[in-house]
Amino acid sequence: MTADSRPDRPRNPGHGPARADRPAHPVVLGQNQYGKAENRVVRITRDGHTHHIKDLSVSVALSGDMEEVHYSGSNANVLPTDTTKNTVFAFAKEHGIASAEEFGIHLARHFVSSQEPIHRARIRIEEYAWERIVTSGGSRGAGGDGGPGHSFVRKGQETRVSQITYDGERWQVVSGLKDLTVLNSTDSEFWGYVKDGYTTLKEAYDRILATDVSARWRYGWTSDEDPVPDWNTSYEQARTHILQAFAETYSLSLQQTLCHMGSRVIGHRDEIDEIRFSLPNNHHFLVDLEPFGLKNDNEVYFAADRPYGLIEATVLREGAEPEIPVDLTNL
Amino acid sequence: MTADSRPDRPRNPGHGPARADRPAHPVVLGQNQYGKAENRVVRITRDGHTHHIKDLSVSVALSGDMEEVHYSGSNANVLPTDTTKNTVFAFAKEHGIASAEEFGIHLARHFVSSQEPIHRARIRIEEYAWERIVTSGGSRGAGGDGGPGHSFVRKGQETRVSQITYDGERWQVVSGLKDLTVLNSTDSEFWGYVKDGYTTLKEAYDRILATDVSARWRYGWTSDEDPVPDWNTSYEQARTHILQAFAETYSLSLQQTLCHMGSRVIGHRDEIDEIRFSLPNNHHFLVDLEPFGLKNDNEVYFAADRPYGLIEATVLREGAEPEIPVDLTNL
Amino acid sequence: MTADSRPDRPRNPGHGPARADRPAHPVVLGQNQYGKAENRVVRITRDGHTHHIKDLSVSVALSGDMEEVHYSGSNANVLPTDTTKNTVFAFAKEHGIASAEEFGIHLARHFVSSQEPIHRARIRIEEYAWERIVTSGGSRGAGGDGGPGHSFVRKGQETRVSQITYDGERWQVVSGLKDLTVLNSTDSEFWGYVKDGYTTLKEAYDRILATDVSARWRYGWTSDEDPVPDWNTSYEQARTHILQAFAETYSLSLQQTLCHMGSRVIGHRDEIDEIRFSLPNNHHFLVDLEPFGLKNDNEVYFAADRPYGLIEATVLREGAEPEIPVDLTNL
Amino acid sequence: MTADSRPDRPRNPGHGPARADRPAHPVVLGQNQYGKAENRVVRITRDGHTHHIKDLSVSVALSGDMEEVHYSGSNANVLPTDTTKNTVFAFAKEHGIASAEEFGIHLARHFVSSQEPIHRARIRIEEYAWERIVTSGGSRGAGGDGGPGHSFVRKGQETRVSQITYDGERWQVVSGLKDLTVLNSTDSEFWGYVKDGYTTLKEAYDRILATDVSARWRYGWTSDEDPVPDWNTSYEQARTHILQAFAETYSLSLQQTLCHMGSRVIGHRDEIDEIRFSLPNNHHFLVDLEPFGLKNDNEVYFAADRPYGLIEATVLREGAEPEIPVDLTNL
Repeated sequence: MTADSRPDRPRNPGHGPARADRPAHPVVLGQNQYGKAENRVVRITRDGHTHHIKDLSVSVALSGDMEEVHYSGSNANVLPTDTTKNTVFAFAKEHGIASAEEFGIHLARHFVSSQEPIHRARIRIEEYAWERIVTSGGSRGAGGDGGPGHSFVRKGQETRVSQITYDGERWQVVSGLKDLTVLNSTDSEFWGYVKDGYTTLKEAYDRILATDVSARWRYGWTSDEDPVPDWNTSYEQARTHILQAFAETYSLSLQQTLCHMGSRVIGHRDEIDEIRFSLPNNHHFLVDLEPFGLKNDNEVYFAADRPYGLIEATVLREGAEPEIPVDLTNL
Repeated sequence: MTADSRPDRPRNPGHGPARADRPAHPVVLGQNQYGKAENRVVRITRDGHTHHIKDLSVSVALSGDMEEVHYSGSNANVLPTDTTKNTVFAFAKEHGIASAEEFGIHLARHFVSSQEPIHRARIRIEEYAWERIVTSGGSRGAGGDGGPGHSFVRKGQETRVSQITYDGERWQVVSGLKDLTVLNSTDSEFWGYVKDGYTTLKEAYDRILATDVSARWRYGWTSDEDPVPDWNTSYEQARTHILQAFAETYSLSLQQTLCHMGSRVIGHRDEIDEIRFSLPNNHHFLVDLEPFGLKNDNEVYFAADRPYGLIEATVLREGAEPEIPVDLTNL
Repeated sequence: MTADSRPDRPRNPGHGPARADRPAHPVVLGQNQYGKAENRVVRITRDGHTHHIKDLSVSVALSGDMEEVHYSGSNANVLPTDTTKNTVFAFAKEHGIASAEEFGIHLARHFVSSQEPIHRARIRIEEYAWERIVTSGGSRGAGGDGGPGHSFVRKGQETRVSQITYDGERWQVVSGLKDLTVLNSTDSEFWGYVKDGYTTLKEAYDRILATDVSARWRYGWTSDEDPVPDWNTSYEQARTHILQAFAETYSLSLQQTLCHMGSRVIGHRDEIDEIRFSLPNNHHFLVDLEPFGLKNDNEVYFAADRPYGLIEATVLREGAEPEIPVDLTNL
Repeated sequence: MTADSRPDRPRNPGHGPARADRPAHPVVLGQNQYGKAENRVVRITRDGHTHHIKDLSVSVALSGDMEEVHYSGSNANVLPTDTTKNTVFAFAKEHGIASAEEFGIHLARHFVSSQEPIHRARIRIEEYAWERIVTSGGSRGAGGDGGPGHSFVRKGQETRVSQITYDGERWQVVSGLKDLTVLNSTDSEFWGYVKDGYTTLKEAYDRILATDVSARWRYGWTSDEDPVPDWNTSYEQARTHILQAFAETYSLSLQQTLCHMGSRVIGHRDEIDEIRFSLPNNHHFLVDLEPFGLKNDNEVYFAADRPYGLIEATVLREGAEPEIPVDLTNL
């Protein structure tokens, strides 16, 4: 039964019948998608008295034959967003959550393969990390490290993110992290730049370099025929390379640091073809203490909020085509 | 003088010289941009005792010949982000702020035309609206409505946004608004949708429809040869059409409402060729009061936070090519 | 049946019985309270085709004979927070929402009078204002202003707040507002202050004065015997006096402006005995444009985020005792 | 020179002279305080190539003889908030930052002892923790763990807070933490509670217990005569006891868990006399998977945002008087 054929739907008293009004002005429908966003699912797995936890926020976006719902309001092709929510929770039971990426692949495949009008599914996932609470021992249950097996404290550092897109044939998996805040208290300079009539900045030969790393990397994996990467190892390794490149690069510009981080990930992780960074320059201004008769030998800084420099770039494996969008936010 | 040729830069004691290290692994630099983000500029204009206020957050992103700063850290082509900040404040004085769009055009043109290595500038602006405080009269100074001419209260409703992009030849202006929260307490239904094994949602014949409108529209104007739109009138009119279409559409789905809003803007505003919406479905669930012996006749609702439906689509003038990106956030 | 007497509660396999463990170390229980926070209730009232909307976030905090639940975990005196949530929604139906204050009074009275162990109830409410969408007319339904009677746009300015406390005998009602952002572009000075060895600030004879008003006022009403104030009129009038005092005070310090705002409310509203303000000084720094050959005649300002001045004070009717706590946040 | 005696202050053209207007209505000034809030100071200390970092947000609130600035706007007793900001940065150089508490003591003592009109100073501090980035070794500089001595990643877990109050004689130090998110996946029950006509909650014999711990503890230290606690050890130990008590308590109610956490801290840390907690009950609802033919054996949960239970209580050492305010927010 289609929406239009429904015979005796209740009406609001005093209102005319709900006509399938079409837009008054001729327009063309462009890219569109819909789904349920930010489904917060927590999955507990029990291994005797030792429990494991996965904590995700999952957003579903579906596209396909959706002209009619836009033009006339007919929902005949529309799987409700509420159903996509239910599917997220049911799949957490049916498939478990080995990794955000694998979980997203299960979901995307399901929507595209089970619903004919759906031609493309995009699953976005944020993952929040937990670590075990270490106790003095002797408690009921047992985590591997002497703590109770069921007590956790949220790690609170970066958020792991992933976006899985599927059109029935090709997979695109873009993973990454955000809000990983790092700081070098030396080994950073900034000089030799262009000066125009609006330039007042003094050159710096020893400054703090600090940023909140937001990175997204795209996996070369695109086909069910090919071997699937080990998503969790890949994440941990990419994160480590980013941190180490930040720490070990003697930086003449944040762009250079960015490029070294990207090069290190591409160079060490064959499964990754492209990586994009969005790096705010978290300014730490040396405070002028001379009015108070004090010398500030790179000791006291004011950490400013706004404005901030913002450095963004993509680093690619040779021969790879860029696919990650320019704006990372919410990706 | 390039970075590399700088002869006698101070060194950090105990550290080796800052070498222009290139990335260890061969990579290709993709899309990149940099600049100062969220410059909060407030511009007061005086008309006798009556003052006017413009309150903006301006973000600058520049692109061009920037390989070397990424590969070696040489800043020889880099206009500092601090300079772009200074330029924003100086231009607020030099050009005034007639509209966010005009102000952004001044800035973009300046960066691209004055700096050879800069090939493209993208200016993003948020504008916060103020209205005059109405007083009992008799005060010093005089606003048009009997209040003092210098006292304002922030309007607090939607945020006006604009993005101006220029590559030396072609302009792209995308404007819009975000966080315009609207609600219809009736004249919304949702039924006739697909049911699969994960569907539990009950059909609704009279529901609350509420959303936070985020909209971006692209102007057809692309060339200095063509007449420039009246940006402020265009904004006010687009906003009005969106609100009225929301209020006057008897809605069978949020997608239909979205399409009517877009059609109304495209149909009434010739200067706009494309509009994209991102509409969260702010769920208001009817509370089950039967356990307490009460009948809830569409009177008491629970306003939920997460998850929420998310409906996104582009509506185009016939013949127009889509340019607005899929993800509106921060655009 | 008390918690301790419950005979055959299921046990977690592998865990010992849930003993009513008391704390290992002797301690005394001090002030305590519990309840459900941030119940988001939307109440629609129908007057023919014209609808009215009330949109609240209601937080319940109950106190009383609660030693045992803290010491042993016995819930025998504990009305669940889930029940307090249900009560909020049920009362929205049973009593309607004429004002936040009246609604809170219904709730507080109910908890204290219906539950013997509950000796005190504190209800906090935030209210979000809506206004009707004005349309071109001719639409179904009719609000008083020619718009449809069921379409609203959130006002988005300040949030109205109220806290109602009841101990079975005495009422305390503290109402107010927060996030009302105001700005004077002139008629503000700051000079003649103390200078010590850490003072570098230059005196200002014409500056921007801007703040986000957070105000809480306490009503003199404490007893069911006395006539109840007209809460909505009182709110609108207090808000108006605050805005007008801000606009009309030639300010030598933000403290002076604060005191004038308080004096105006106390002087005009007999039902209010005490008012406290928390006023951040939203700094707008005049930008130095001289390096660019430009004169900044109080035209271009940088709106800073942090740090900010913070001015807080209570203004009392003569003879009134102060009751509003020093820290307003979340009150 | 007082404010009133200033002879020839510039005037705004067109405005009358700035009179020292007093409030129009007779009022009494109650508690008041002022200062600069959220001074973000980062202090680097160098130990050869190994650097140390302290990252604070410091808020100053001063009270004293401040009637005149409120009544007439005379700033003759007012040390500018800008000066309090300068003092924070200067003291970071002069005294270093051994701990938030010690730093706050330096500041409070300074304001009260150096400014006669200032009778009381309250310093609030938030501290953000950093840990070293571990690298593959061999890098320039050397942290103790093989990483470079100058590279840090923000820990990102709880925020350490402290409030130091001084009136020239007596010290009050209240320290604590906020946003420490913890979760037990079992060993939590909730049953045996009161049922009234609005109760629909089902009893739970095995549920997730999760909260964001916000705790404030007051030190017994009040006098310069007495030995000062080791603030950093005390913080680390209190934090550990809170975590362990959370993990090891078999919980029949969140109140019981709270009381055990408090008892553990009071019992083990002689320097602490009082502790208050504010614990949201971060609800994790077991998802009903039966409609999909699945059994949910405490595996799949929906993590809800609002509303949430909120449990607050003070735990005192026997004989101690409560001083920590009921509302912890921003303390």
